[in-house]
Amino acid sequence: MLSDRLVGEIIKKESPIVVGLDPRLDMIPEDIRNKHFKTYGETLKAVSESIIEFNRGIIDAVAPHVPAVKPQIAFYEQYGIEGLIAYQDACKYAKENGLIVVGDVKRGDIGSTSKAYSIAHLGKTIVGTKKISTFEVDFATINPYLGDDCMQEFMEEIKLYDKGIFVLVKTSNKTSGQIQDLNVAGEKVYEKVAHLVNQWSEKYCGGSGYSSIGAVVGATYPEELEILRKKMPSAMFLVPGYGAQGGGAKDIVGAFGKDGLGALINNSRGILYAYVKHGGDYKSGAEKATIEMKSAISNELKRIRNHY
Amino acid sequence: MLSDRLVGEIIKKESPIVVGLDPRLDMIPEDIRNKHFKTYGETLKAVSESIIEFNRGIIDAVAPHVPAVKPQIAFYEQYGIEGLIAYQDACKYAKENGLIVVGDVKRGDIGSTSKAYSIAHLGKTIVGTKKISTFEVDFATINPYLGDDCMQEFMEEIKLYDKGIFVLVKTSNKTSGQIQDLNVAGEKVYEKVAHLVNQWSEKYCGGSGYSSIGAVVGATYPEELEILRKKMPSAMFLVPGYGAQGGGAKDIVGAFGKDGLGALINNSRGILYAYVKHGGDYKSGAEKATIEMKSAISNELKRIRNHY
Repeated sequence: MLSDRLVGEIIKKESPIVVGLDPRLDMIPEDIRNKHFKTYGETLKAVSESIIEFNRGIIDAVAPHVPAVKPQIAFYEQYGIEGLIAYQDACKYAKENGLIVVGDVKRGDIGSTSKAYSIAHLGKTIVGTKKISTFEVDFATINPYLGDDCMQEFMEEIKLYDKGIFVLVKTSNKTSGQIQDLNVAGEKVYEKVAHLVNQWSEKYCGGSGYSSIGAVVGATYPEELEILRKKMPSAMFLVPGYGAQGGGAKDIVGAFGKDGLGALINNSRGILYAYVKHGGDYKSGAEKATIEMKSAISNELKRIRNHY
Repeated sequence: MLSDRLVGEIIKKESPIVVGLDPRLDMIPEDIRNKHFKTYGETLKAVSESIIEFNRGIIDAVAPHVPAVKPQIAFYEQYGIEGLIAYQDACKYAKENGLIVVGDVKRGDIGSTSKAYSIAHLGKTIVGTKKISTFEVDFATINPYLGDDCMQEFMEEIKLYDKGIFVLVKTSNKTSGQIQDLNVAGEKVYEKVAHLVNQWSEKYCGGSGYSSIGAVVGATYPEELEILRKKMPSAMFLVPGYGAQGGGAKDIVGAFGKDGLGALINNSRGILYAYVKHGGDYKSGAEKATIEMKSAISNELKRIRNHY
């Protein structure tokens, strides 16, 4: 099962880090941009080629140190069809380099529409006698506002193709509380969502003790992380908000199970654009930042374990 | 303002109908499919070309009778890059035929990521000295689970390019209540979302009394429609669930303001695939179904007005 493979990779690489592939054109090294703009002019093709080259460099640099990458599709979608070609390239190149791919798509809709998203991002499209992959990744992120449809409609692809989903439970942004923190008879809305997710996680759990039905819980809410870990013991956690958004190694320990596993900690800008702050080559910068983050998390996990 | 233009078109065409462009390959007339599969083989290109031809036929048939169309991006995304080319074609062709386009994308994310979606679906992407449209539509649908970020980050494009959003408040599916109906001190979660939407609607309201910041409320929950109309007096309503999902003309009257305006009623399958049920040409079938729906809604609105 995907969740077991992911846990295996986390153990092998001694690293629960997922690198967020969020391309920001103005932060891609100038020489890369200049080269493609010279070839293709001021076009989306030039942007797409710049992103592809940049991402491949990042993947080369971090693949030995992390189990997974997480391209955020919005950053590609803003560059249209050409941007989505770069998204597909990132997913494909990461897979070829042995990485598990989390498509951060935050999709979710009703019935047959949710099913179409499931086919797009986890499954295969049937065309006559052929089955064709389109935006296929390993895990997709899902928005739960529409209820069970968001989990249910993805289950067929999850089982058939050994895929997974991370359902938004408590997000890392400042205004997340407006809906997610509303109090429902002593429980928050995000806890209600956690119950829903937990039902699906438990139903579909791997030998590692973790399920391919996971939850997104922000690093910026460390107390909530601990509470939610208890409410969803078998859910794999995807934790955004580390680094640029303010979360540090101390903030994310609550995301892990007692075995020190079960969580993927995301860092995007802090790794991709480390070179802007520290100078030098962007690939070396990304590798160095990844190793530092790995070490910081590892130390914190050791400290916590020794404490008990 | 977009909302005023929409109200103008609704009055001009005496029709609050938005036709959902949800292509289902197996329901596209066989002769269209056969032609493109013969030319392109069992490929996504063949699917894309079939969808493009089908959609253009539908748009030709319904354009005189409706103010707007609503392509549901999931149905295109499942066919990958080629599918999204068909999505862009639907948006462009509809615009060329004088229709307002609602991109049913249900996007929503945090800060800069939500902004990227806003650029993708409402704005223009800056590439060097150029501004390029990618998936640009008039209105986009938005998921509110992440809070104000979902409205805030779209405001720049809404103002700059005269665009709008429909925020999911109460969706038409059966499991929508699992999160949306949770009780928060006497109010439902969807009512809390309605308050948020109303704040933004009132801030940005047009001369017609309706705002380009609107709400999605399902036809399958008629009582909620009435309650929500009162809570969001200036929000334009987008009402899915009419027809195949079970809602009828009587169910949607609560969506309208006292002026009989302020709502767009969506029908997808009931119009697109009317020919399957009634035989004949798909374009005539779609036109006939649209005229019937227009008449059913008009009669119901008259009945209600006479009642008071």
